[in-house]
Amino acid sequence: MTFDSEETETDPNIFRDESGEPRGDFVERVERAVAEGDSAQVHELVGALHESDLGALLELLDHETRNRLIALMGADFDFVALTEVGETTREDILEELPVETLAEAVRDLESDDAVAILEALEPEEQAEVLEALPAHERVILRRSLDCPEDSAGRLMQTTLIAVPPFWTAGQVLDFFRNTDPDELPDNFFEVFVVDPGYRLLGTVFLDALVREAPTKRVDEIMQADRRRVHPTDESAEVARLFERYNLVSVPVVDEAERLVGVITIDDIVDVLEAAATEEIKALGGVSPAEELSDNFWQTAKSRFLWLLINLGTAFIASSVLRLFESQLQQMVALAVLAPIVASQGGNSATQTMTVAVRALATRELSRANATRIILRELAAGALNGAAFGLITGVVAANWFQNIGIAPVMGLAMCTNLVAGALGGILVPLTLDRFEIDPAVSSSAFVTTVTDVVGYGAFLSIASLWFGLY
Amino acid sequence: MTFDSEETETDPNIFRDESGEPRGDFVERVERAVAEGDSAQVHELVGALHESDLGALLELLDHETRNRLIALMGADFDFVALTEVGETTREDILEELPVETLAEAVRDLESDDAVAILEALEPEEQAEVLEALPAHERVILRRSLDCPEDSAGRLMQTTLIAVPPFWTAGQVLDFFRNTDPDELPDNFFEVFVVDPGYRLLGTVFLDALVREAPTKRVDEIMQADRRRVHPTDESAEVARLFERYNLVSVPVVDEAERLVGVITIDDIVDVLEAAATEEIKALGGVSPAEELSDNFWQTAKSRFLWLLINLGTAFIASSVLRLFESQLQQMVALAVLAPIVASQGGNSATQTMTVAVRALATRELSRANATRIILRELAAGALNGAAFGLITGVVAANWFQNIGIAPVMGLAMCTNLVAGALGGILVPLTLDRFEIDPAVSSSAFVTTVTDVVGYGAFLSIASLWFGLY
Repeated sequence: MTFDSEETETDPNIFRDESGEPRGDFVERVERAVAEGDSAQVHELVGALHESDLGALLELLDHETRNRLIALMGADFDFVALTEVGETTREDILEELPVETLAEAVRDLESDDAVAILEALEPEEQAEVLEALPAHERVILRRSLDCPEDSAGRLMQTTLIAVPPFWTAGQVLDFFRNTDPDELPDNFFEVFVVDPGYRLLGTVFLDALVREAPTKRVDEIMQADRRRVHPTDESAEVARLFERYNLVSVPVVDEAERLVGVITIDDIVDVLEAAATEEIKALGGVSPAEELSDNFWQTAKSRFLWLLINLGTAFIASSVLRLFESQLQQMVALAVLAPIVASQGGNSATQTMTVAVRALATRELSRANATRIILRELAAGALNGAAFGLITGVVAANWFQNIGIAPVMGLAMCTNLVAGALGGILVPLTLDRFEIDPAVSSSAFVTTVTDVVGYGAFLSIASLWFGLY
Repeated sequence: MTFDSEETETDPNIFRDESGEPRGDFVERVERAVAEGDSAQVHELVGALHESDLGALLELLDHETRNRLIALMGADFDFVALTEVGETTREDILEELPVETLAEAVRDLESDDAVAILEALEPEEQAEVLEALPAHERVILRRSLDCPEDSAGRLMQTTLIAVPPFWTAGQVLDFFRNTDPDELPDNFFEVFVVDPGYRLLGTVFLDALVREAPTKRVDEIMQADRRRVHPTDESAEVARLFERYNLVSVPVVDEAERLVGVITIDDIVDVLEAAATEEIKALGGVSPAEELSDNFWQTAKSRFLWLLINLGTAFIASSVLRLFESQLQQMVALAVLAPIVASQGGNSATQTMTVAVRALATRELSRANATRIILRELAAGALNGAAFGLITGVVAANWFQNIGIAPVMGLAMCTNLVAGALGGILVPLTLDRFEIDPAVSSSAFVTTVTDVVGYGAFLSIASLWFGLY
């Protein structure tokens, strides 16, 4: 990545190196300046950082340094940076700040950023901050905060430009030029056309507006069929809509089709990334609430439940082994080989499950093609089952110098890979049908299937083949 | 999700139900119309679909139906839909189309979409299509195709608006109005300011332009310090930049700072989603090239290698078991319990590894905080190790009515959870340091660690405690 540093006042690379990693020496300089209480130096180092880099910097500092830095920056601290840090860090910072500082900060922010700060406060403190705001802003922010968490209403920006349908393109342009810049949104892509009841009639993108003759009426150039969302819609669903239809913004309307806000793609990118992170964590058995800034106690606690569930499934699998105690004693090779059958089935099932979970999340896998995918996974499982049955049979027979092990190992392996394929696809599909997030719950079920089938098939076949009892 | 269907000519929900799933009955109607060769009906059903829904529909149809549908649509087929399907499907469709059709389609597309189609063609066919294009377009497309796959050059859009610095805001607006709409990009957010050598001086967003007096010069209102990228930059890195700094577009310049294109956020959203999918697949042991449209043979083949590697690690783990063959024979309970120690360590290590891999991908984990995270994981591992050592010790001792099993199981469990924590964090960090993708390779290493340590620790401690030999 390269930037044009000659033309900028501050080097955009001051905080990150070429690979995008934060620079250790920069962080140390900030720590030193904060420790020395050198406000001028802190201003110089931190003042020019992009809000996103400032957020990343705050994440890297310890509690003390962080709060002293914010105190040293005073009114120059950019509160937007708090929308770029994890929840734990945000709450940790906000806890230390007096209500007046918070109220002032919230007043200066765009509505979506203000909501992000307010929702991280304790209820009483949130009420106090809202009380300290002008009535007009309070009403708007309350409306957003009344929407459920992770809904469109929390994401939307309420400062927008709405014009009547009879205005001309020229009138709209004059309006931009003659309006106090503070009244306009910081950035905007489009103008909304509303009727006297503020019901959304359509929107005009700026690039469409500027192509038209100044005498053209906006209702002649507006797009009336814009997709729109409601404040209570889930943000993940809204994000999926942006992604699917390549949107850059979407109007938010209430039940009466009245325009209440707009969601822009820069906020959606964060939602999509958060959704991907959540899915990855869920598949790895990590709670979505866990954050990198958590301490070891929070970390251990948040991972405990998943480990406990898995421990339960491990005991279930081992009870299958115990059913064959006498056979294991008669032929200890079986105890050495059984885990291989179980593990190979588990890995194969995890592959299938990963593909299924991801395809369900992106809506690529649906009723319309579920049958084809189930059959495909079954066939692929049987094929690899045959291949690995052969390989492991030959290797195991050689390893233990016992030719009889080959068919036992081969047959068990093949059975378990087919069972794994079935479990890997059917478990996520079933969970999804019952509206349980398949990313969270599939793997415990699936590995139980492959452990139980792996041990059970291998030891039963071995008992029969070798005549063990 | 709700849309305003009254004001649209075609119902945007015709293809998907409320949850966003494709409607089975719609797909069947299309299949029937195609089978009957009813061109009018096909046009009516498919003609109004958004390119993205058309792409999803094509994915759901079989090879035959797909190609007949495209033939029936003729010149009305929207080739942009091919940028919305998986690679396998895209290649499958393109293979069947004559060069003239392709050349015509490519000519009508925006440059980034044209590149997406061209890169899916065989080299000879690609050359033929390029040959059939006007020289001017050919040069532009070749320049993109000369860039590496997954680079900024492949993503960029080359139709853009560039103006000299001495133009006024009013002149730019006049230019928009007086230019043939076909010469302007379909959508644009900003105007680029270039010198006579086409070197990028800065950019003006439309919303900034329309706020200004018509007499203001663009070089007075342009942003000179815009971040910019090079055509050879990796698209994943460019995407990270958009995400980090909330960009909506970024100019692409060559080594001489000459403007060659622009990348907009709608393309980046696809890159981010693709990167998330790739990371999820990698963690699940699935090749990034695997697609839902693959058949069972391709699927089995693409999963074979990962399973083979895991089979190797399973044999390594079992060799550790085999070292203790005589002890297992003397006390078969050990064979039943050893997999529990290994599995719990594996799950705990996977949690740590998942967090580490994701945080490395988002650059939240870096040298600046690696030490803190390593220590945190170690402490959390020890804490949960102690907890699960206690739990499993008590449960196992009761299960086998042997009090001596408790300390053995407890100590081994604790050791393995600490080893898993160390492996889970150090393996991804080390791989990343050597620029090997930690999402792909970590889990094989990590589970080998927890299997070997789990079996080894449990059986050694048991041998000592019970005096087995």
